[in-house]
Amino acid sequence: MTKQIFQGVWPALLTPTHTDGTLNVAELEKIVELLIGQELDGLYLLGSTGQGFLFTEAERKEITKKTIEIANGRIPVMVQVGAMNTEESVRLAKHAAESGADGISSVGPIYYAGNSNMAFTHYRRIAEATDLPFFPYQIGGAASRDVLQKLLDLPQVKGMKLTTDKLLEIGSISNLSGGKWQLFSGADELMCQAAICGTVGAIGSFYNLFGPTCKHMRQSFLDGEVLTAQDFMMKFQGLIETIMPYIWTFIIRGMELKYGIQIGQPKPPILAPEMPLSDEEVMAMMEEIDAFGPAQS
Amino acid sequence: MTKQIFQGVWPALLTPTHTDGTLNVAELEKIVELLIGQELDGLYLLGSTGQGFLFTEAERKEITKKTIEIANGRIPVMVQVGAMNTEESVRLAKHAAESGADGISSVGPIYYAGNSNMAFTHYRRIAEATDLPFFPYQIGGAASRDVLQKLLDLPQVKGMKLTTDKLLEIGSISNLSGGKWQLFSGADELMCQAAICGTVGAIGSFYNLFGPTCKHMRQSFLDGEVLTAQDFMMKFQGLIETIMPYIWTFIIRGMELKYGIQIGQPKPPILAPEMPLSDEEVMAMMEEIDAFGPAQS
Amino acid sequence: MTKQIFQGVWPALLTPTHTDGTLNVAELEKIVELLIGQELDGLYLLGSTGQGFLFTEAERKEITKKTIEIANGRIPVMVQVGAMNTEESVRLAKHAAESGADGISSVGPIYYAGNSNMAFTHYRRIAEATDLPFFPYQIGGAASRDVLQKLLDLPQVKGMKLTTDKLLEIGSISNLSGGKWQLFSGADELMCQAAICGTVGAIGSFYNLFGPTCKHMRQSFLDGEVLTAQDFMMKFQGLIETIMPYIWTFIIRGMELKYGIQIGQPKPPILAPEMPLSDEEVMAMMEEIDAFGPAQS
Amino acid sequence: MTKQIFQGVWPALLTPTHTDGTLNVAELEKIVELLIGQELDGLYLLGSTGQGFLFTEAERKEITKKTIEIANGRIPVMVQVGAMNTEESVRLAKHAAESGADGISSVGPIYYAGNSNMAFTHYRRIAEATDLPFFPYQIGGAASRDVLQKLLDLPQVKGMKLTTDKLLEIGSISNLSGGKWQLFSGADELMCQAAICGTVGAIGSFYNLFGPTCKHMRQSFLDGEVLTAQDFMMKFQGLIETIMPYIWTFIIRGMELKYGIQIGQPKPPILAPEMPLSDEEVMAMMEEIDAFGPAQS
Repeated sequence: MTKQIFQGVWPALLTPTHTDGTLNVAELEKIVELLIGQELDGLYLLGSTGQGFLFTEAERKEITKKTIEIANGRIPVMVQVGAMNTEESVRLAKHAAESGADGISSVGPIYYAGNSNMAFTHYRRIAEATDLPFFPYQIGGAASRDVLQKLLDLPQVKGMKLTTDKLLEIGSISNLSGGKWQLFSGADELMCQAAICGTVGAIGSFYNLFGPTCKHMRQSFLDGEVLTAQDFMMKFQGLIETIMPYIWTFIIRGMELKYGIQIGQPKPPILAPEMPLSDEEVMAMMEEIDAFGPAQS
Repeated sequence: MTKQIFQGVWPALLTPTHTDGTLNVAELEKIVELLIGQELDGLYLLGSTGQGFLFTEAERKEITKKTIEIANGRIPVMVQVGAMNTEESVRLAKHAAESGADGISSVGPIYYAGNSNMAFTHYRRIAEATDLPFFPYQIGGAASRDVLQKLLDLPQVKGMKLTTDKLLEIGSISNLSGGKWQLFSGADELMCQAAICGTVGAIGSFYNLFGPTCKHMRQSFLDGEVLTAQDFMMKFQGLIETIMPYIWTFIIRGMELKYGIQIGQPKPPILAPEMPLSDEEVMAMMEEIDAFGPAQS
Repeated sequence: MTKQIFQGVWPALLTPTHTDGTLNVAELEKIVELLIGQELDGLYLLGSTGQGFLFTEAERKEITKKTIEIANGRIPVMVQVGAMNTEESVRLAKHAAESGADGISSVGPIYYAGNSNMAFTHYRRIAEATDLPFFPYQIGGAASRDVLQKLLDLPQVKGMKLTTDKLLEIGSISNLSGGKWQLFSGADELMCQAAICGTVGAIGSFYNLFGPTCKHMRQSFLDGEVLTAQDFMMKFQGLIETIMPYIWTFIIRGMELKYGIQIGQPKPPILAPEMPLSDEEVMAMMEEIDAFGPAQS
Repeated sequence: MTKQIFQGVWPALLTPTHTDGTLNVAELEKIVELLIGQELDGLYLLGSTGQGFLFTEAERKEITKKTIEIANGRIPVMVQVGAMNTEESVRLAKHAAESGADGISSVGPIYYAGNSNMAFTHYRRIAEATDLPFFPYQIGGAASRDVLQKLLDLPQVKGMKLTTDKLLEIGSISNLSGGKWQLFSGADELMCQAAICGTVGAIGSFYNLFGPTCKHMRQSFLDGEVLTAQDFMMKFQGLIETIMPYIWTFIIRGMELKYGIQIGQPKPPILAPEMPLSDEEVMAMMEEIDAFGPAQS
């Protein structure tokens, strides 16, 4: 690979659905075109935001195939293939490779999460299923040192997606990999903080809604605009904390108001509870964030 | 219901599989006949032990149907229908009812486990899917008071399966329900301790292997054999702690050695690592437990 | 020691104080006489209940000396000597030995609780300060296996006080010690449950208030009265959960109403908030517990 | 206050002691002069690093008095007055005020840490003991929202010291206070990351050893040198992770090698275990950090 494609700001792509829960291809096209047009750095499919775990295996394959067809090489695509059953993850990994994905990612064991040997074996099986760059997805608590050390020896593993607010964990893994891995942070509201822990990119929900602004602020920060970045990060964190009780509702409404894209209702057990915000308030809140965007800089 | 069937010792039924991971009906028949012959109090299908989360929806339905057919009314059957997707759980609940199950059970949300409203709504959807008695399955940390209070108002909820080693939690829920609920404990090694926290029964893996002994000891304890029960519980806990690193291997080997039943390998990410015990050692360890069984009393 | 004194029901002695926070010797005499008269099995001084950590070193020595003088060999006395500074604990241990204590106990490091080596060294220094039987006090989370293994090699260590609601922990330590240690449980509301995990006694706050009833129920349980014990434990746990938000207020008021003993206000940061219970309600709640006592059996 | 003194890089002052554990005034003078000469922004006395909790009340007063005398108005001094007993903290707070401290700080309740009301009352009692600016010290887990909200209403509270690696917590408190509070971070290895969460300063152990370098890097970062700061923070975190098992040994040896200052052994239960590093290695590791210092910029 002459150019490093695994870096920058990658939306954890929302998966638009019809009322019956099936994929809405027309809206999927609109959102993929939007994010390509915004010159974001990649698409992360079927993670938590994309409701990957709530679609059937057949649906996950369809969504993967369609998205890669729409993207058509204009933007890198990484597919999250984690599932409760390791064999299903392996099949999804192979399908992603056959469909032309640029990379794959996977959470660790979800329900049967007993020990580090189980976690490593699960990751290894997925890694070895294809030749694609593989980015294990660590969510929540600290990654086991033992698992990390063994992952470093798998040639397919090129980095990780680290969704944690414990920033020492990120720096520690960065140091452990000796710069060999491309690390992505997963907590949007710590995007810039994570960048000085050695991440090369950020994957998250809010880059569907605020992609250009976040990409601009991340780059401005690296270019030295620290006080502006501080101001932005505080406001961005404030917004995220405010809307957390109805995050799905806010994002869905925001996508419609800002971009005219219909995401549809999330699948249960995810809830999109009623939101105590008018459309005007949602717009105003989004504008406050986008005031930090490239047009205004 | 004239007789209370939701009580006593219920094996969390192992699901025998062929090498390719599909259901082994012949061995399923053998294990169900075994447990009926042992006069255990009920069968709990497709929980963690039964690898419920690692079979497809179609396979779960097949396993449910076959088991109920084999049981043929000779032993009560409760089906664990929890899945990542609430709709799948609802379909599994309806199928269990149509297949003649006596009750259903479900874990809470697995991956998307954000808040108590999500947890309650997930449970409520499943409860309302059928008229069967429903036993929410609480695993690990403390159950939300808020969720418990709302569950008490659902007419289908007749109790819970509480898999925790924090015994105050069990007593507390027992007190909260005012005796209205039938509570099952899920930590086999605290079976008797839980009984004095208000449980009426126990559901667990080891009752596949030690059903008659555990049923006998539980009843003896309630009848006043406290010192024997203490001795038994200490040895039982000792065995479980010893084999924990290779629990699947031990149980599978034990079922073959003791009963000639082939369970087959568990599905990944579950591992059945090699075990530093000879068949003679496994037999001796099982005999030490069964020395507390009914024949010896 | 011909008779094993470290067993049975030991109140974690309340320390009566004057309004200015100094020791109230007259009330101390009354409570010690009360508990001796009730034929309880021992007194545990200056633990959490006795506010050990909130008295100065000189006050702790005075309280130790006076209590042992009052007890005058009529009841065994164990002194909790844990402090933030290990040297202070060592001095308190020596003082306890000189004053005629029967045993000592200590929490692990309190604030500087970095690693298992620190914990073991702290315990070892205290153990080696005297020839008295020493009972490390484990509170909260799991004890480090590493520390436990090393404690087993210290000749002074004769058991532990385990304050946890995770009963597997207790059984596990009991198995680990191979019956060599005398274990006391610290969660009053799991007194009987802990007894079938291998404890030989119970140390706790509520034995100041309900000593005879708890001693009677513990023994009845061991003698086979399981259903009565179950009924008692459920009611006892119910009471404790109800009063938890104002536990100090309830105990202090209870001691006065029931025994005419003035404990005095606890030292800050402990609070004794106002209690939404009349004296009649407190009396009625205590009577419900004491209905399980020896007179009524 | 015309100039805001509560900002910048504050060493959590090491407390030099003699072999017998008493204060070493001569070395205290040397370290205070050193840090003043390095133009650091303030001194934080008797926190975890200063072993505040392991000195007696009389010793804490002596250390406070001497340090303030030596500083003699040349550098602001904040005194950590937290103790297990709230009354002791109140006395220490008053003494700090009488001795001329610029501010006080305190941890929350240490052992009796039951509920948020206890925590707030403890903080409030200390705050109201003097007119000095008060900085509650939050260590470890998340601060209770309830406590924070009430602290905002206390006129003496001017900020907090937040020792956590969960950076969202810092940003969240910063947003909650609406810029009213001066926040200090306590995790040295996240100094710059915390700065973009709204902190105005950093208090920590390593600023005894690397004060000028850390002050320089913090300011360079705020001035826009993001990539250098990233490089520095990664190396600084790497050093801290490496030496963590023998952190006290490293710092004590470093102070002697670099500055000729004798800190003395820490008080038990703190341990200063043997270190697998030669003096040359310690020097080389310190030089690698100081390569980022002002002289080299």
